[in-house]
Amino acid sequence: MSRIDGRTPDALRNVTIDRGWSKHAEGSVLVAFGDTKVLCTASVTEGVPRWRKGSGEGWVTAEYAMLPRATNTRGDRESVRGRIGGRTHEISRLIGRSLRAVVDYKALGENTVVLDCDVLQADGGTRTAAITGAYVALADAIAWAQRKKLVKPGRTPLTGSVAAVSVGIVGGVPLLDLCYEEDVRAETDMNVVCTGDGRFVEVQGTAEAEPFARAELNALLDLAVAGCTALADAQRAALA
Amino acid sequence: MSRIDGRTPDALRNVTIDRGWSKHAEGSVLVAFGDTKVLCTASVTEGVPRWRKGSGEGWVTAEYAMLPRATNTRGDRESVRGRIGGRTHEISRLIGRSLRAVVDYKALGENTVVLDCDVLQADGGTRTAAITGAYVALADAIAWAQRKKLVKPGRTPLTGSVAAVSVGIVGGVPLLDLCYEEDVRAETDMNVVCTGDGRFVEVQGTAEAEPFARAELNALLDLAVAGCTALADAQRAALA
Amino acid sequence: MSRIDGRTPDALRNVTIDRGWSKHAEGSVLVAFGDTKVLCTASVTEGVPRWRKGSGEGWVTAEYAMLPRATNTRGDRESVRGRIGGRTHEISRLIGRSLRAVVDYKALGENTVVLDCDVLQADGGTRTAAITGAYVALADAIAWAQRKKLVKPGRTPLTGSVAAVSVGIVGGVPLLDLCYEEDVRAETDMNVVCTGDGRFVEVQGTAEAEPFARAELNALLDLAVAGCTALADAQRAALA
Amino acid sequence: MSRIDGRTPDALRNVTIDRGWSKHAEGSVLVAFGDTKVLCTASVTEGVPRWRKGSGEGWVTAEYAMLPRATNTRGDRESVRGRIGGRTHEISRLIGRSLRAVVDYKALGENTVVLDCDVLQADGGTRTAAITGAYVALADAIAWAQRKKLVKPGRTPLTGSVAAVSVGIVGGVPLLDLCYEEDVRAETDMNVVCTGDGRFVEVQGTAEAEPFARAELNALLDLAVAGCTALADAQRAALA
Amino acid sequence: MSRIDGRTPDALRNVTIDRGWSKHAEGSVLVAFGDTKVLCTASVTEGVPRWRKGSGEGWVTAEYAMLPRATNTRGDRESVRGRIGGRTHEISRLIGRSLRAVVDYKALGENTVVLDCDVLQADGGTRTAAITGAYVALADAIAWAQRKKLVKPGRTPLTGSVAAVSVGIVGGVPLLDLCYEEDVRAETDMNVVCTGDGRFVEVQGTAEAEPFARAELNALLDLAVAGCTALADAQRAALA
Amino acid sequence: MSRIDGRTPDALRNVTIDRGWSKHAEGSVLVAFGDTKVLCTASVTEGVPRWRKGSGEGWVTAEYAMLPRATNTRGDRESVRGRIGGRTHEISRLIGRSLRAVVDYKALGENTVVLDCDVLQADGGTRTAAITGAYVALADAIAWAQRKKLVKPGRTPLTGSVAAVSVGIVGGVPLLDLCYEEDVRAETDMNVVCTGDGRFVEVQGTAEAEPFARAELNALLDLAVAGCTALADAQRAALA
Repeated sequence: MSRIDGRTPDALRNVTIDRGWSKHAEGSVLVAFGDTKVLCTASVTEGVPRWRKGSGEGWVTAEYAMLPRATNTRGDRESVRGRIGGRTHEISRLIGRSLRAVVDYKALGENTVVLDCDVLQADGGTRTAAITGAYVALADAIAWAQRKKLVKPGRTPLTGSVAAVSVGIVGGVPLLDLCYEEDVRAETDMNVVCTGDGRFVEVQGTAEAEPFARAELNALLDLAVAGCTALADAQRAALA
Repeated sequence: MSRIDGRTPDALRNVTIDRGWSKHAEGSVLVAFGDTKVLCTASVTEGVPRWRKGSGEGWVTAEYAMLPRATNTRGDRESVRGRIGGRTHEISRLIGRSLRAVVDYKALGENTVVLDCDVLQADGGTRTAAITGAYVALADAIAWAQRKKLVKPGRTPLTGSVAAVSVGIVGGVPLLDLCYEEDVRAETDMNVVCTGDGRFVEVQGTAEAEPFARAELNALLDLAVAGCTALADAQRAALA
Repeated sequence: MSRIDGRTPDALRNVTIDRGWSKHAEGSVLVAFGDTKVLCTASVTEGVPRWRKGSGEGWVTAEYAMLPRATNTRGDRESVRGRIGGRTHEISRLIGRSLRAVVDYKALGENTVVLDCDVLQADGGTRTAAITGAYVALADAIAWAQRKKLVKPGRTPLTGSVAAVSVGIVGGVPLLDLCYEEDVRAETDMNVVCTGDGRFVEVQGTAEAEPFARAELNALLDLAVAGCTALADAQRAALA
Repeated sequence: MSRIDGRTPDALRNVTIDRGWSKHAEGSVLVAFGDTKVLCTASVTEGVPRWRKGSGEGWVTAEYAMLPRATNTRGDRESVRGRIGGRTHEISRLIGRSLRAVVDYKALGENTVVLDCDVLQADGGTRTAAITGAYVALADAIAWAQRKKLVKPGRTPLTGSVAAVSVGIVGGVPLLDLCYEEDVRAETDMNVVCTGDGRFVEVQGTAEAEPFARAELNALLDLAVAGCTALADAQRAALA
Repeated sequence: MSRIDGRTPDALRNVTIDRGWSKHAEGSVLVAFGDTKVLCTASVTEGVPRWRKGSGEGWVTAEYAMLPRATNTRGDRESVRGRIGGRTHEISRLIGRSLRAVVDYKALGENTVVLDCDVLQADGGTRTAAITGAYVALADAIAWAQRKKLVKPGRTPLTGSVAAVSVGIVGGVPLLDLCYEEDVRAETDMNVVCTGDGRFVEVQGTAEAEPFARAELNALLDLAVAGCTALADAQRAALA
Repeated sequence: MSRIDGRTPDALRNVTIDRGWSKHAEGSVLVAFGDTKVLCTASVTEGVPRWRKGSGEGWVTAEYAMLPRATNTRGDRESVRGRIGGRTHEISRLIGRSLRAVVDYKALGENTVVLDCDVLQADGGTRTAAITGAYVALADAIAWAQRKKLVKPGRTPLTGSVAAVSVGIVGGVPLLDLCYEEDVRAETDMNVVCTGDGRFVEVQGTAEAEPFARAELNALLDLAVAGCTALADAQRAALA
């Protein structure tokens, strides 16, 4: 059985990671998972939020957003509506937690990195592409901070790499890296964030149509771990 | 090894489900998981949101909030701040999805049920208590709608029951139903929502300190499934 | 002539004042005036708002809100609407002023007490129940602050007690402590806040249908003063 | 004992009521109570808010605001802060209720009158000046609606006139129509709204420093009724 | 060809500049361009915004607003809607830039002047009347600051005067100082801000119906410069 | 004298116009003026805003925004701050007016086109690049609407082309198409929008440091018209 775009169930879409996309940001990546394109920038500032001052520890946070016509139908701008929607909040928090899982705050020192992930074009998997791209932007930003001596030499502030992928059950078949059309038809949908050594940072599975069984959960986790391993390779290649 | 409050690792806290708490709501439950107390009301209105009109299908949604002094330190009111925080958004969405997983929209007909889950006192596990209590309030509200003939006789709008529990790894030990003090110290934290027949509706695991391995994930899922089974029994007893 | 619920015109509803309702707050009271139930918590923090710093004087403020399904028909959450309504503002201000009338700021020292009054179930008289309950929560919070030595020994920060009741003219008859159904039908509606020694802190009378005469005003004030006296007794009993 | 500005305790400030101030509004009045100046406009539109459609009844509402430099120190604009303060809400509601007390909705028919009361210069008593001026603007607007045949001939939509004045106890002496300096020093402050025939529409008394006794309340009410009678005369003269 | 109100194409409306309108503000002017009336107040405070502290330089800013019934049809209050509209933002910024063009920040020292321009009645040209009046209020406020020794003697903080006028092409004819009815029918609309010595501070021309040619632009600029010269004379006379 | 980037005073930066950038939008262009990059999408929907229904005429509107790290220093997201800034409002309005100047609403019929201009990287001239790119996106969107028969055959809805450029005086020299560094140092700054036949749609000149004379204004207009002519050629080439 072949998929909408001809892939096998366990195949990622074509993944590209373009570094140095922006002339201003300390790290910037245009990441593509097929037709999903996300611009990830990492902005470094000296100092930390007030509640963390004097701790000797840094901070990493993320903001996710979509351009209004990133999707098939134009969506209202959240700035015009005057409030951020629940989905945006949820994804921004997920990206932040995922990246923080590989940061050593002590080694970062009292510096803040903000990761902005703006979806320029959406075709499913925007949050997983964002995490995967943001890691590379973060790595570049931290390297910049090391060159600028904002970060003390010695211990590196990154304890590993992190990548993410979506998996789901469509028509009873577990699939890796869903495009939008597959996502809409999925009975179960899961986003998995893994470190480069194959451990889990986040597992978020949702029954969209039917509750799912332990065996299905296991099959999805197998697919996701393999996908994240391939993405970790792509990140390593991009940073080489 | 015994826990802060003397429980064994696989023990729930004392769970109480008081129905009919409010004289106004179609369904209302004061649910307690130990010192966590959540007031869940279910409000039925005829009709559905605009985007669903004419579909013949109903809708179920949820809103979660905390009273300012439900917690150890007083928090600002979101109404006073003029915006809902990301955590509130995220939990409201989780509760809504969880309850919708056991609703047959066709059988509900063009009626809407809003589940309000207000935390009166928090001690960890507020979202899982909210889901567990909201199910009972929903069941009462649907029974009310059936008595009032808003819902057609025959097919029942509930396809099963739903309950939720938190699990986590604290000091290397997987624990069921974390209280606040345990939650703060957890290395990994997971919320699991199950149907009464033991299948998964939501699985949300987060590495708080260290990424977690597949074996740890499995141990947590085992604990959670057992906990949800016990909660399903408590729901059944309350509704009897 | 007997009232909807069988009371005589000058009778209060059944009033209960349960102290120590919450494990977190420095003072907490679940107050009921018949079916009206309000959870009042008093939160003490060291320090005062910026405009009062260095004055040596404390501050007391209040916030009132209703749970969405406290009423017969579900109301929108003010946090979701993104703004606080005029009625909420008005009542919060009234509660704050009423409690401040019995506080000696100098004796309180640079400490702040926030009174949160959340209506769990509404059946008329929510603001008067809130004031009556908040006084007891405030007394408990101040006693806590004295035990913790936040407040200097000697002069007590409370100069007296304060309670409130609604009165109104329904069908030409002055009535004490209106329930919702009476309130809706009242020609004139008045909320009166008194100190324990029978003096006035606030008198707010409104002609709902017909302007009212001086004689009617006097009859309502007589009823209200008697009601507040009985409430002061109930407060004293609760605090004993 | 003479007052700051030389008045006797029972004297109003100089009151002027200038009709036809604006070329656009159906009714417009620049009212002055001494140095307090309020521009009151009445805007008539056909139709009523959605919740009143088909009732055959009209609606009257009010909005109060202060120019930023109406006061001694510049205040932030509520439009810039993005939210209306509690005091503004409270006063807008008071003005609306006061004017509605003399409106016969049936006779008004399905028309809406909005009263905008903008304080150009403040020196105490802005809400009472606003009510007093708004009544005259409303009378002009209703006369306009009658000429335009928006209102059916026969029954007039105004059942009487309405005016308001502040009273207070300063240094133990009951005073009529407080200016700002007196208001700041008042121990008790009361706003009273009366119909032209001397009955009460609103009585709002507040203890600013000390709780007040029944005798003080009575003395203040006597002063206020006399003041409102004089204001009703001024309104009648202005409309003649 | 004569205009709606009988003026020749190059004639201003009747312009009045009343100083000292408010008892509170350091400078206050009620300016009228025909039926357009704007209350301009200048508020002086010691100190500057945070980003300017320690610079030794002052700051001047402006806020523009319309009363709801300044126009023919009542507009919603921006405070009630909870946000400022684009037009208001745009005009506030224009007024601020225009006034800052004649301010010597060094000579002003670390003081801030806020210019509030509130349109009491609108009939076209509200922003140009606001700039013209605000200059006079600013001059009075600076004189006040000099008398109070907030501003050091010697160099004056005003480097010149500033005034503004609208011009436009209506029915093919270039006209000075458009009233509302002309403004609505204009093919091209331009606002021009000039210093007292005839140089440009702002030129904002907009094609409303048809793009305009260089010759038309030149004709409009000629009219505007002449108009601003006359307004500078009126300002000088008012300040004499 | 040569410029920062080696250009002559009358030279545009390198201009590129990439059509078909997005797979979803009816028209989409990535426009670059040197390092300034703006993604312009045109979204077509059937129907018009309520106030235009039944008129037989279409509507075109625009929204402008910057990604947070489009600039050298990261800016807060307007969605997170909950309100749109004055600069954003002003530019969105300018873009909308500029594009509407070449639209024949009757020929467009009751269809709406929304132009979203999102700045991905900023280096001066973002609003002029946005207008220039948005025109090409609009032309593509209208061609799409013609192919889909949303627009009636015959009269084309575009009456011409429109482009924009900034000009300014830096160090006394009039320059075309300022980059950010030049913009910051400009004494006078002007944005000019022209139709393809060389007439003006908008002229917005601002004295940043010194008021400017008529001769300077003329020199700037000469430069701008020549620049717009070159941009119109680039647009024509891109659409060929």
